[in-house]
Amino acid sequence: MKRAYNFNAGPSALPLAVLERAQKQLLNFQQTGMSVMELSHRSKEYDAVHERAEMLLRKLMNIPDTHDVLFLQGGASLQFSMVPMNLLKEGEVGNYVLTDSWSDKAMKEAKKVGATHVAASSKEEKYTYIPTNIELSERPAYLHITSNNTIAGTQWREFPNVSVDLIADMSSDILSRHIDVSRFALIYAGAQKNLGPSGVTVVIIRKDLLAKGDDRLPTMLNYRTYSESRSLYNTPPTFAIYMLSLVLEWVEEQGGVQMIEKKNAEKAALLYRCIDESEGFYKGHAKKESRSHMNVTFTLPNEELTKKFLAEAKEKGLIGLAGHRSVGGCRASIYNAVDMEACEALVQFMETFRKNIF
Amino acid sequence: MKRAYNFNAGPSALPLAVLERAQKQLLNFQQTGMSVMELSHRSKEYDAVHERAEMLLRKLMNIPDTHDVLFLQGGASLQFSMVPMNLLKEGEVGNYVLTDSWSDKAMKEAKKVGATHVAASSKEEKYTYIPTNIELSERPAYLHITSNNTIAGTQWREFPNVSVDLIADMSSDILSRHIDVSRFALIYAGAQKNLGPSGVTVVIIRKDLLAKGDDRLPTMLNYRTYSESRSLYNTPPTFAIYMLSLVLEWVEEQGGVQMIEKKNAEKAALLYRCIDESEGFYKGHAKKESRSHMNVTFTLPNEELTKKFLAEAKEKGLIGLAGHRSVGGCRASIYNAVDMEACEALVQFMETFRKNIF
Ligand SMILES: Cc1ncc(COP(=O)(O)O)c(C=O)c1O
Ligand SMILES: Cc1ncc(COP(=O)(O)O)c(C=O)c1O
Ligand SMILES: [Mg+2]
Ligand SMILES: [Mg+2]
Ligand SMILES: [Mg+2]
Ligand SMILES: [Mg+2]
Repeated sequence: MKRAYNFNAGPSALPLAVLERAQKQLLNFQQTGMSVMELSHRSKEYDAVHERAEMLLRKLMNIPDTHDVLFLQGGASLQFSMVPMNLLKEGEVGNYVLTDSWSDKAMKEAKKVGATHVAASSKEEKYTYIPTNIELSERPAYLHITSNNTIAGTQWREFPNVSVDLIADMSSDILSRHIDVSRFALIYAGAQKNLGPSGVTVVIIRKDLLAKGDDRLPTMLNYRTYSESRSLYNTPPTFAIYMLSLVLEWVEEQGGVQMIEKKNAEKAALLYRCIDESEGFYKGHAKKESRSHMNVTFTLPNEELTKKFLAEAKEKGLIGLAGHRSVGGCRASIYNAVDMEACEALVQFMETFRKNIF
Repeated sequence: MKRAYNFNAGPSALPLAVLERAQKQLLNFQQTGMSVMELSHRSKEYDAVHERAEMLLRKLMNIPDTHDVLFLQGGASLQFSMVPMNLLKEGEVGNYVLTDSWSDKAMKEAKKVGATHVAASSKEEKYTYIPTNIELSERPAYLHITSNNTIAGTQWREFPNVSVDLIADMSSDILSRHIDVSRFALIYAGAQKNLGPSGVTVVIIRKDLLAKGDDRLPTMLNYRTYSESRSLYNTPPTFAIYMLSLVLEWVEEQGGVQMIEKKNAEKAALLYRCIDESEGFYKGHAKKESRSHMNVTFTLPNEELTKKFLAEAKEKGLIGLAGHRSVGGCRASIYNAVDMEACEALVQFMETFRKNIF
């Protein structure tokens, strides 16, 4: 079997070792005579998986006891609504930094719940950078940022220093670098980029915020429900959480977040160097100081060459390189599971392609 | 490997052939060089899986063109809220038949949204039967029933003949028997009993109802979002939907719902006969005319014997037989993937156990 070089933006590449482990155990999990998918979510075997996923995430991200770890469904998109439903109260204002259409969507959902305010935005410049001139509204409930912007290919290097509760959509860079969780009131992430397959969403929430959830909220949309039941109020997506636990084990085996971060920086540097040394053939979409280590966005001289590039790349087994329709061009998503070898293969392809054109 | 005899109430047994197929394809889906979990949800390969799941469900359940098929996350419990959020309007009343704590919970969530009315209930008699004396409220928005009651072990044999929109939670008997979908305004089911692993929820909705969803609803909680995007508004739980497609293929290979229904009736008859011929040692919880073909609930003479029964059963590889804590005793869930051999093994165990006691 030839593995694809998988640059999908999400769902995306998983570590081969994780897939092999899952395959091996698929019919008979720990001598139970059952697949992990067939276990009751109330069984002690599944419970150990569930606990292990939380424990490993706590350990790898160094999550303090002040914060709860929750497993939900519905993707990051449901969090766009759950955040304001739980945390945006009458008379308060949800503050948003607009850095890409994901933060845009997050704010749109908040508008259905209460008042919102744009605290900063790079929309006028096609989201090519991370704005730093944050101006909070009166009575801010929180400041919402998107730590990595999957579409634009930008990433916060330093998080804003504000006195208000900081909330981050970390869907596309959670566990890719060290972050100080204690600085955040709430972090959420769909799993399908750095954590596992789609179907499970991780929420890390400072415990005092749980009291804010109104009892009149639908039970399944109240963070307290998940906190009080260890995310076992109803049937969780057991297989997705199992896969999450395997991915977390793999991260640990790689040397933890510190080593992962180092490798990610090297992978990104390799790609950006190729872009920067292409004599303008490849152009980075994001401004240099805001470049993402996860999603490398770039364009070619024209539409025709872009099409040719994508078609030839695919033929060579380099998958998922088309840019998001709102930005166009190309995007290489190089999440944790995309290794240096894949990045080297891409760079080699990019160089050869360019030389063949000129 | 010895397969367990898996009587879990959900997540529950999956067909061995389905697990084997998934295992075989896990590292390389259709020569893509990727796992199905690693495919973009926007790729043509994943799209074919997604379409196939809908197509097969339509075919097997004979779903008319008047109805849409949607794939959601959050389990049946989120549907307890989404149904009234989308379909219960100011001035209308959500009518509920209470047959077990699941319908109870469904009504509790509806109460947060609007007015509700108990149209019938067997709560006073420990939910041991399906009530037929339905009394609708004024201005009913819909009548909500639970087609199979997983905890009590009862099942509607004939659905109520009402002039109002009929909504059914079919989580624990969807695809287990022929039903006339055209009689229902909306059907929902968490997948983890008859359809696949946990993590995907199926909704079948009459298309005219889609207009009822208010634009002010959170996007992810409006059925219209799923209808308009073919359940691809955001990242769907791709692996769970893939497993669903494999389970549906398997149902087709078994001869479709007609054959499945016949086998299910035989399996249930075998178990109920064992109970009825036990001279009172095993007592069925449900009244005979309301007995479920999916969840066979029964008690033993006392707590001590029940414990002994469960422990010895487990030793013999008969898993998941403890009754739900609210009913006690025992429960054998015999969903589609639980075969006659497993039921025969259980009956043999029950008979031997009884004879050893007397
Ligand atoms: C930063 C970010 N937020 C939110 C989303 C939406 O995630 P989901 O599809 O899980 O709803 C994405 C998806 O790519 C994303 O990259
Ligand atoms: C009839 C019925 N409805 C709803 C549920 C809740 O399903 P979920 O755990 O998917 O929310 C169950 C779970 O067993 C059930 O049996
Ligand atoms: Mg906890
Ligand atoms: Mg998701
Ligand atoms: Mg459709
Ligand atoms: Mg579910």
